[in-house]
Amino acid sequence: MLGKVLKTIKSSSDICRLSMAELTELADDLRGHIKSSVSEHGGHLASNLGIVELTLALHYVFNFSRDRIVFDVGHQCYVHKMLSGRAAQFDKLRQKGGISGFPSPSESEYDQFFVGHAGTAAATAVGLALGAQLQGSQEKVVSIIGDASIVNGLSFEGLNNTNLVNRQLLFILNDNEMAIAKTQGAFAEYLTKMRVSRTHDMLNRRARMLIKRLPQIQKKLDQLKSALTGNHWFDQLNVPVYGPIDGHNLPVLIEVLTALKNFDHPVILHVYTDKGRGFTPATDDPTTFHSPRPFKIEGESASFDESSGKSFTSSFADALSAAMARDPKVYAITAAMPDGTGLNEVQAKFPDRVFDVGIAESAAVDIAAGMAKTGLKPVVAIYSTFLQRAFDQVFQEVSLQNLPVIFCMDRAGMVGGDGAVHHGFTDISIFRTLPNMVIMAPSDDSEMVKALDYAFSCGKPCCLRYPRASVATEEAIECNGPTSYEANQSRQLRVGDRATILAFGSMAYDALAAAGILEDSAIDVSVYDCRFAKPLDGELLGRVLAKGGTGPVVTVEDHSLPGGFGSAVLEFAQDNGLDVSRVHRLGFPDRYIGQDTRSGQLAEAGIDAASIAAKIKELLK
Amino acid sequence: MLGKVLKTIKSSSDICRLSMAELTELADDLRGHIKSSVSEHGGHLASNLGIVELTLALHYVFNFSRDRIVFDVGHQCYVHKMLSGRAAQFDKLRQKGGISGFPSPSESEYDQFFVGHAGTAAATAVGLALGAQLQGSQEKVVSIIGDASIVNGLSFEGLNNTNLVNRQLLFILNDNEMAIAKTQGAFAEYLTKMRVSRTHDMLNRRARMLIKRLPQIQKKLDQLKSALTGNHWFDQLNVPVYGPIDGHNLPVLIEVLTALKNFDHPVILHVYTDKGRGFTPATDDPTTFHSPRPFKIEGESASFDESSGKSFTSSFADALSAAMARDPKVYAITAAMPDGTGLNEVQAKFPDRVFDVGIAESAAVDIAAGMAKTGLKPVVAIYSTFLQRAFDQVFQEVSLQNLPVIFCMDRAGMVGGDGAVHHGFTDISIFRTLPNMVIMAPSDDSEMVKALDYAFSCGKPCCLRYPRASVATEEAIECNGPTSYEANQSRQLRVGDRATILAFGSMAYDALAAAGILEDSAIDVSVYDCRFAKPLDGELLGRVLAKGGTGPVVTVEDHSLPGGFGSAVLEFAQDNGLDVSRVHRLGFPDRYIGQDTRSGQLAEAGIDAASIAAKIKELLK
Repeated sequence: MLGKVLKTIKSSSDICRLSMAELTELADDLRGHIKSSVSEHGGHLASNLGIVELTLALHYVFNFSRDRIVFDVGHQCYVHKMLSGRAAQFDKLRQKGGISGFPSPSESEYDQFFVGHAGTAAATAVGLALGAQLQGSQEKVVSIIGDASIVNGLSFEGLNNTNLVNRQLLFILNDNEMAIAKTQGAFAEYLTKMRVSRTHDMLNRRARMLIKRLPQIQKKLDQLKSALTGNHWFDQLNVPVYGPIDGHNLPVLIEVLTALKNFDHPVILHVYTDKGRGFTPATDDPTTFHSPRPFKIEGESASFDESSGKSFTSSFADALSAAMARDPKVYAITAAMPDGTGLNEVQAKFPDRVFDVGIAESAAVDIAAGMAKTGLKPVVAIYSTFLQRAFDQVFQEVSLQNLPVIFCMDRAGMVGGDGAVHHGFTDISIFRTLPNMVIMAPSDDSEMVKALDYAFSCGKPCCLRYPRASVATEEAIECNGPTSYEANQSRQLRVGDRATILAFGSMAYDALAAAGILEDSAIDVSVYDCRFAKPLDGELLGRVLAKGGTGPVVTVEDHSLPGGFGSAVLEFAQDNGLDVSRVHRLGFPDRYIGQDTRSGQLAEAGIDAASIAAKIKELLK
Repeated sequence: MLGKVLKTIKSSSDICRLSMAELTELADDLRGHIKSSVSEHGGHLASNLGIVELTLALHYVFNFSRDRIVFDVGHQCYVHKMLSGRAAQFDKLRQKGGISGFPSPSESEYDQFFVGHAGTAAATAVGLALGAQLQGSQEKVVSIIGDASIVNGLSFEGLNNTNLVNRQLLFILNDNEMAIAKTQGAFAEYLTKMRVSRTHDMLNRRARMLIKRLPQIQKKLDQLKSALTGNHWFDQLNVPVYGPIDGHNLPVLIEVLTALKNFDHPVILHVYTDKGRGFTPATDDPTTFHSPRPFKIEGESASFDESSGKSFTSSFADALSAAMARDPKVYAITAAMPDGTGLNEVQAKFPDRVFDVGIAESAAVDIAAGMAKTGLKPVVAIYSTFLQRAFDQVFQEVSLQNLPVIFCMDRAGMVGGDGAVHHGFTDISIFRTLPNMVIMAPSDDSEMVKALDYAFSCGKPCCLRYPRASVATEEAIECNGPTSYEANQSRQLRVGDRATILAFGSMAYDALAAAGILEDSAIDVSVYDCRFAKPLDGELLGRVLAKGGTGPVVTVEDHSLPGGFGSAVLEFAQDNGLDVSRVHRLGFPDRYIGQDTRSGQLAEAGIDAASIAAKIKELLK
């Protein structure tokens, strides 16, 4: 339900006609709409509640049908979307065919980049401004960077290259003192030190006083700069810094942005905002309400339904905690995602053995490599899509050294509502190119324990991948006798003679379901849980793909087809003179798949149980 | 020929017995040995000449059989190697079985990591120190970072996480005002500003005066800190900074390092050094003498033999210059490698259309993405191995947006003397996972022009890969009539009926040579120059792999086998019901191949002409 003023906003241009009273009411409407949309569909809450006034002021001052705005990480774009003609579409937030939870150029010309990874807003904005500069076009460029993103190396590289730009470019440091988790590192401490001596009230008083007292806007700003900033880190990057100012005071924001808009060189505006502003549960616990699943609002409190079963995330946390209890050499590292990776649960038990390095995936890998070199057993827990950022470090500091660092990649495969910016679809292919690497995918709760134990014992760099999904907690029955968990070794979950399914990781359960469907048509198929993508189970492949054998052998992976698990099977089969013609691969097609439920995405990719069964029927025809 | 003092250094422990006069003589010996070794074999010169006294002082003060030292980028490790028992082995510098041009743990326990990529020394040192801290071991950790590496995002991330360490950790900022090329970005300007007001002489006078005048070493250092540093950027990262001091003054270096060694918290020492010190040609032109090929020394001058033919690098530079002359929308970006990528030649013609962003590959890609969004046509020229560092940006900012950014990857394939840290062996596999990407490999000089023109015209993200090698400049004769350069399309270079070689990129010429060898045995083979790895030439594959056809079809790529070009051919053949059993793949094995000549490495991988011919003979048996 749109509020009274929000209802009147058909496009961004409607905003500058509003009075300050109406703008304030609009801010309330926006907060209400964010709360109701996210409580219904899940999504990013606290960060969007915090950025209401700032986004409103930006839309009031700039014209984003022509000017360009980029949001770092992107999940703080809800207000921007609502103000650029998309408020009504939030009834399908993060659903198939509905509004994306991230900026999306395919939705609107108001969005510049699809973006869900951090640290990109400085460099892309430099590129946008440089492009305008070289072509002499006049659009303004605004880049909004959070205090968590600004510690990412890419942010630093982007800001360091701001000297390429000699025209307008406005960076806004949206400083809410925490992002997904508490911001980490020395720079965060520096921002905190700045903050403690300056309350919002004091900032407002000083800023307004200065603005009122001085006649010329440029001079006002110079005063604002020198009075409030003192010696700022960014000054040494040669980009003048203004602020900090209160990011919830609309008149101040509008006045300062109006002035900064016309500067003919890059500037940074440092803004303080409160994450979760206007919704007590979110301000009290911004981590839980960073990206909550659907919840119920009752007045000023919020409640979640019981979650549906154990997640792979919790399975990993349990397995790692057990390993830590046994082995004092085990440590864990996360890059700003203690909650998403389950390391918060581990940290509760082992507070001194979990390190959060902030949004710094590359450093996380290199710090782990250093620790491994001293004899420790570090586990790096980073989502599959984010570990892409550290591919070169996994190559040089880990694989090339053959150091026993263990990478635990949550969100491997389709991720549901977060969509294309978050799918874990490249990890098998990219890490498989690296010598020494072991690539595993535990298929259920007990396999997680075994896979992690194997990783600790094998003395090599290992990847474990598992999806954003519930984990099967009842042990699957292994056929042909129980197998141990040894290098390369698969386990058979079902015996059949018409076809063979080689499923990687959690796909084993979808394969079992497919086998159930096929049984109804009197088609018996074998199902293998292939634990390893590298090295492969050569004994098994030699058996099922022996020349003279019959029946299709179908690989299934929650991953893209080019270079993935199925491709590895093809390579092995052909290199070893097996009957490669019987191999058929199922996995993601070579295109981006947008937001949907995870099960909808698996169906779209043709790797849900029904699609697997249908494919096998087709092959048996 | 080792000098008189250097000859007496059997291990690092011999150094602390030397007098200051002997140390000074040793410095001369080291410079002489570096000059003679590099002039004979090629290698990194200027940076190693610059770091002689600093390394010597470190070995004098620390004990690196127990303490740990990491060098950023690693190519400045020659003195360290000479002082740790490896001086005599420089007669085989960068040659097979000889000494590596980069740190190598397989050579010596004095080396911690194989490293040739920049920005790693801060984070790995944090990991090494953290590992020691958690285990209570007492070894010291020293990390040497150049002023070019420190602008890399990973350096920043590492330094930002130094607050994890609460024990000894010494960072040395080896500031020579330039690295491979002039250091770029605002931070470099900041360092320059610091520098201009302080000459080396003045630094020496002040440092020595302070050290002499004050009784306690801790107090001396505090004075040195406050007197010389003022307000240093790093102070805001909460790591105290000492210096700058003169990096060529041994007594000062030894005294300061002796004091800093026992600090129980991380510190940074800022040291000024002169790149190329002690060899006039290198101080005059440190870029040329950064990593020269072999040269002749005559007194105080140096001369190179004529180079042997045009390189792929120059071919690219010519093709890009031609495109720029035609199209004002074309711009180029490099990440600190204008010389290595050939962009220096382009910049000479178009000084305002080439941008160097420093060692910031990720930002280079994102800035290019921003420029492309504004309608420009950016070319990003980065070595294959270094573009690995921007994989995530190529994914999110380029492939996901389907923006027409062109990646020109020099050093794709085997690189010769630089060895495993520099081979371009993953690019096809990793970029092939990304939807929208076009992956090309021009095989010769005229193909380079056509490939680049195609890239500009197709409106999609494109990769061009080509090796560190001479380029064929006489146009190869195309069989079956001249072909145009169209999407996916291969060209046939030779007709034969016994076997088919599908060569990717420059391998086409090795394949032609193999065909020549086979002709001597009366075996006629077809050779195709497969220009595209993605999308593949489906028409050609359908023809040569038709069911019922005969003869092996051998793919050849200067790239690793897992997920590479041959794997793509396997996938296509199997997905399209072709005769996949006739496909055989040649490429790098799944292990790291060390330094050697490029031709030696191709032979080791089995992809030189002789190996290709032998493989085909074997298949035809």
